[in-house]
Amino acid sequence: MVTTSSVRALSDVRLPSGEQADILIEDGIVTAVGPGLAADRADVVHGARRLVLPGFVDGHMHLDKTLTGLPWMPHRAGPERASRIETERRMRAELPPVAPRAARLVADCVGHGTTAMRSHVDVDDAIGLSHVAALLAVREAAAAHVDLQLVAFPQSGVLNRPGVRSLLDAAIAAGCDLLGGIDPVAIDGDLDGQLDVLFAIAERRGVGLDIHLHDPGAAGMAEIAGVVERTRVHGMAGHVTVSHGFCLGAADDSDLERLAASMAEAGVALVTHGGGASPMPPVKRLRERGVTVFAGNDDIRDPWSPLGTGDMLERAMLIAWRGGYRTDADLAVALDVATTSGAQGLGLPRHGPRVGSRADLVLVDAETPAEAVARRPGRALVLKGGRVVARDGALTEPLVLA
Amino acid sequence: MVTTSSVRALSDVRLPSGEQADILIEDGIVTAVGPGLAADRADVVHGARRLVLPGFVDGHMHLDKTLTGLPWMPHRAGPERASRIETERRMRAELPPVAPRAARLVADCVGHGTTAMRSHVDVDDAIGLSHVAALLAVREAAAAHVDLQLVAFPQSGVLNRPGVRSLLDAAIAAGCDLLGGIDPVAIDGDLDGQLDVLFAIAERRGVGLDIHLHDPGAAGMAEIAGVVERTRVHGMAGHVTVSHGFCLGAADDSDLERLAASMAEAGVALVTHGGGASPMPPVKRLRERGVTVFAGNDDIRDPWSPLGTGDMLERAMLIAWRGGYRTDADLAVALDVATTSGAQGLGLPRHGPRVGSRADLVLVDAETPAEAVARRPGRALVLKGGRVVARDGALTEPLVLA
Repeated sequence: MVTTSSVRALSDVRLPSGEQADILIEDGIVTAVGPGLAADRADVVHGARRLVLPGFVDGHMHLDKTLTGLPWMPHRAGPERASRIETERRMRAELPPVAPRAARLVADCVGHGTTAMRSHVDVDDAIGLSHVAALLAVREAAAAHVDLQLVAFPQSGVLNRPGVRSLLDAAIAAGCDLLGGIDPVAIDGDLDGQLDVLFAIAERRGVGLDIHLHDPGAAGMAEIAGVVERTRVHGMAGHVTVSHGFCLGAADDSDLERLAASMAEAGVALVTHGGGASPMPPVKRLRERGVTVFAGNDDIRDPWSPLGTGDMLERAMLIAWRGGYRTDADLAVALDVATTSGAQGLGLPRHGPRVGSRADLVLVDAETPAEAVARRPGRALVLKGGRVVARDGALTEPLVLA
Repeated sequence: MVTTSSVRALSDVRLPSGEQADILIEDGIVTAVGPGLAADRADVVHGARRLVLPGFVDGHMHLDKTLTGLPWMPHRAGPERASRIETERRMRAELPPVAPRAARLVADCVGHGTTAMRSHVDVDDAIGLSHVAALLAVREAAAAHVDLQLVAFPQSGVLNRPGVRSLLDAAIAAGCDLLGGIDPVAIDGDLDGQLDVLFAIAERRGVGLDIHLHDPGAAGMAEIAGVVERTRVHGMAGHVTVSHGFCLGAADDSDLERLAASMAEAGVALVTHGGGASPMPPVKRLRERGVTVFAGNDDIRDPWSPLGTGDMLERAMLIAWRGGYRTDADLAVALDVATTSGAQGLGLPRHGPRVGSRADLVLVDAETPAEAVARRPGRALVLKGGRVVARDGALTEPLVLA
């Protein structure tokens, strides 16, 4: 642990409400927020009237896939999901080891203000648990910098690949935090079959689920309904996430209302990257119906997409742009899904500049949270549990893989 | 003129094709491209193996509206276009003068590598030609930095506002380069009426047209058909642009093919910002059908939207993200609409790193154009007609308003 960078007080910051204040921190928790508190304290970091935001939560990543930092590699896959899966499987042998690539991206994200993240990690019949082992090592190396949840992710399918079912179980035993899944209809051709397997493992192991659902239209809606029903039956409210759920972005009013109500009632959350070329689920409406919605960067320069950065403020902007958000209240929604709702979706303790919250904080040069989303200023300071982990985009202490 | 910053040669740059080369420049024109050419030349700028791109062309701006650089102002308008028009009219009196605001944004854009731009400028019954006068002054002040085309833009409508018709005519007489228009159906309630007035002025004054068409569905398609028909009748191929054309992003196949073919045949171009919350016109398909498609940032923090920056590489990324572009060839399309096709759409001389082209060039740290779009590195150097106008994002000589 790097005790020298622990902070007891942040002085002269601007709160999201606009007020100037000092923030006192003890044992990584915010203990007081108000004017003049830091005047006679040691270990004070001067905020220079910068805006303080809750640490960013990247709720959907693929750390083991990233090509960030490597020489440019043109995208090779065709436009279909199946082509991307097969192309990625072929490419893996050419790539340098997973752990250093992933660690580099984690460092980049922390520099951008991310203090918690959830990464899927591929588990399949070709690589077994090797990516899991690599990301477990990254999680350990980055433990003081960021909360990292790992989702054992059957990218190539569950039922259609021999041995994946037991590999997923073994991935949880090895230390993954959640169980993943993918498009039971399109990939496995068996909606109930894949979901039954996943929920059975999750219940036996006592872990949550985060399931990729890209399928459009009726298939996607049936998949969401299947996830919702099993979440209710297994009593897993608050522990199940639908990733993407593009079908919600194209659903008609009655389907949307029905699905949103059932997700809210069952405690099934949604994570979105904003849709891109696919329809973006209606973030504001889902929130209004009681669904926990949070945001993630998803692909960050990997075999699935050459686009993407580790910056969750940019992701908030993309969601705002795609959603037509303009008012400060709407831009606050875009920031909330990248911060506070992200922590809720990941089941983490409350964080941010409020008494009793964990001191995961980001300082930026902006007047308001809305301006931060619109302009995306550099990250002057990143605190993780009261420790300074990054300044001006760079880590204060490097990540060291064992 | 700032002769000290004229460049005779750029050495050791990486061409978009990937080859290392030197670039020789005389009188603002590229005269030779190849290895070893700059070895014994004076006035050499060392490219340090950076990638050289054509200068960026921002094909749709509203310089007179920007709030960039001002204290944060929350968005005030409601979600309807009419509310935005009325809110903006009320806000104008509170804002500082147009020319310094606009000049600041121009400087920011040039720092980001934009070497040519087309800005609409509001003309209406409340402000008359005052914004036109301000932007004419900015055009003069920025003449050595950027090509700036001005479109006399009836933001509040043409037929429904007394005197706007003659104000538009006067704006052209005062020096605007093109005539604008806006949603004849939704704003004026008279498709033929507005278009007839606009084409009559344009023909009499010998200028082109660039008409905002946001209207969705049948109204939008009828407006495009009306623009196409008049472009043909008036023999204005290559001088007419449809801005936005959101209806093309939601048209069914047969409507799209019909409209695309008619636009290509009549020589009507399309400029897009990528759609955001509206459907993005199918950029690749329109290009394949022979339509000139180019890109613009549109709102850059103004009363219409708090989002937007002056960075056309970011705009290229947004178009790629919205279009699902992943391959190097597709990312090259996203860059092309922000550079070469932009110059074509604006009717400008060919520019970029090719013999005979104007030396409007941008150097960035990237291996390939695709990587430049995906990662958007800083702009190390911006050349306008062979002169260094910006380094590392900052102008080498400030813009000075008379």
